Amino acid sequence: MARVFNFASGPAVLPESVLRQAQAEMLDWGGHGFSVLETSHRAAPFVVVMDETEALLRELLGVPANYRVLFMQGGGHQQFSMVPINLLGAKFHADYLLTGHWSLAAAAEARRFCSVNVVADTASSGATRVPRQVELALDAGAAYAYYCPNETIHGVEFDYVPDTGAVPLVADASSSFLSRPLEVARHGLVFACAQKNFGPAGLTAVIVRDDLIGHTSNRWPTLLDYKVYADARSLWNTPATFAVYIARLVLLWLKAQGGVAAIERLNIEKSALLYATIDGSGGFYMNRVAVPNRSRMNVPFSLRDDSLNDTFLAGAETVGLVQLKGHRSVGGMRASLYNAMPLAGVQALVAFMREFQRTHG
Amino acid sequence: MARVFNFASGPAVLPESVLRQAQAEMLDWGGHGFSVLETSHRAAPFVVVMDETEALLRELLGVPANYRVLFMQGGGHQQFSMVPINLLGAKFHADYLLTGHWSLAAAAEARRFCSVNVVADTASSGATRVPRQVELALDAGAAYAYYCPNETIHGVEFDYVPDTGAVPLVADASSSFLSRPLEVARHGLVFACAQKNFGPAGLTAVIVRDDLIGHTSNRWPTLLDYKVYADARSLWNTPATFAVYIARLVLLWLKAQGGVAAIERLNIEKSALLYATIDGSGGFYMNRVAVPNRSRMNVPFSLRDDSLNDTFLAGAETVGLVQLKGHRSVGGMRASLYNAMPLAGVQALVAFMREFQRTHG
Repeated sequence: MARVFNFASGPAVLPESVLRQAQAEMLDWGGHGFSVLETSHRAAPFVVVMDETEALLRELLGVPANYRVLFMQGGGHQQFSMVPINLLGAKFHADYLLTGHWSLAAAAEARRFCSVNVVADTASSGATRVPRQVELALDAGAAYAYYCPNETIHGVEFDYVPDTGAVPLVADASSSFLSRPLEVARHGLVFACAQKNFGPAGLTAVIVRDDLIGHTSNRWPTLLDYKVYADARSLWNTPATFAVYIARLVLLWLKAQGGVAAIERLNIEKSALLYATIDGSGGFYMNRVAVPNRSRMNVPFSLRDDSLNDTFLAGAETVGLVQLKGHRSVGGMRASLYNAMPLAGVQALVAFMREFQRTHG
Repeated sequence: MARVFNFASGPAVLPESVLRQAQAEMLDWGGHGFSVLETSHRAAPFVVVMDETEALLRELLGVPANYRVLFMQGGGHQQFSMVPINLLGAKFHADYLLTGHWSLAAAAEARRFCSVNVVADTASSGATRVPRQVELALDAGAAYAYYCPNETIHGVEFDYVPDTGAVPLVADASSSFLSRPLEVARHGLVFACAQKNFGPAGLTAVIVRDDLIGHTSNRWPTLLDYKVYADARSLWNTPATFAVYIARLVLLWLKAQGGVAAIERLNIEKSALLYATIDGSGGFYMNRVAVPNRSRMNVPFSLRDDSLNDTFLAGAETVGLVQLKGHRSVGGMRASLYNAMPLAGVQALVAFMREFQRTHG
């Protein structure tokens, strides 16, 4: 069938031109006579892919020279343990900002390794806003301070970077990565699983300041040490090679769109159109998140009449608008508007929403 | 260019029909209007892929009902730590058979977590054979006994399954997985990274007996607990979805070839042809491995005159025989003859070798 508009929260929509290139090269990559799926990760052509992926990320995000860019497997969940295992050093406690599902999950995992100081908790009251800077009960002696700039499930996004003084700030940037400029230098470590704005599942990028590497011990598995990846240029073991290959194509696509600043303007336009439709529906559609903290990437919304949910989802599918069901913990609908979602997709969604309200309102 | 014969040791050659199907479905998978790269791992069509991949593995290998089949990330290296972390229980030592690079690497990692008892060591004397059963200095009190049925780098393959009595036997079957029948019931745990006979990099299969699951503690990262994967049917976090998708296609292809017994016959024929060429060269080509332990999957060989290596490799490339360079720790050449390497590829290789000997001998 024709390509649909796919609002999945991740793994998520990829640029069509990226898929077309992967399709064209599937049996013969770069004139080598084999697929990128079939090559040794240590063969020269693939090492070039790794190097170029890093160089593109550095260029697009303006990563300072004293930060390393590492690629690994295991997704965000693996980082939930790697962050404390690598950053605690001689300390025993870390600061966590709880703003929704993913920061809660990270804190729960961290409790296996250290004492967690809850700096602020807007999750327990419904995850409809982020704390302001003045609300943060920061501990100057913490090993690091952790937050999630965009909560994928609750659709809550920070409109500022917390100031944690000399305490290294750690960001799970998975679902806002590459959607807007990132002030890397204000962070000690930023990680992002790829399957939102960066590529397929199986790849995670970690951007970490030099001085934070090399402080874990050999009581932990080798694969959980950032230094192993830094020393081996992320080729200590076999990476998910195809995911890296696609990520490079996505970064080239993003660069051709004008880079992060240009895609941010489009992301603002796309999300503003959807929120305006929700807010202008007279309560037929609802989003409960405080306006300054509404996510540009993930827009959860509910119907005033929950019993219409299945009708809404089925109707949307018939017009090619798919994977709109909200997370099971929240219910309702969620439209993820990642970089690769064109404006036309959001226009089609709001047109459907208006028509659905007209016929069911 | 035309498809070449690709002898890479992994990531390695895939069946051309699998690549063609992936190519055809790249923009529209299963009539959904999106790529398999773009779907939530929890969406119904992808859950079916996971379930079918497990069912096919069970069928092809005859996995008994009291074994779980788990899928995870991190490759063999992650298993090097997960095996001791999960299987030690209240014990502090484990048995390791050292037969080459990969069993040595596994033992080195295990020493982070327990005392390693070296049951036998044929690696330190050149890794040219495996120990016989009578040579094994097994410890009846070990938590488990570990071996690598096929050493990818040294080209040494077990011609029997070690008998470890009541001690659970663990196999790193990565490079022989699905190439021959596997006596699962004689093992406590078998793992295999996918990038040899099973699919792309980024996926690892673990086949583990029920009673060996659930004995680790929450001092370790959640992702290192087999029980987490078993309870969540390997969907606790996002798997490398594309790698699973390709693995299912590879298993369907293998089934269509007649299954594991049929592919074993072909693998015997392919490797016998190459070894006969080496042995029949009057010493121009050499393989030092004891005949009963010669690997069917990975055939390392050297030239009598090492200074001809680059000429050999360059000449092979000009006739479409690629990735034949031996591992840096061994030198010389290595031809990996995984399931997807057709007999025609080996015939082309031995024809080139004979011609090269005629012109350079």
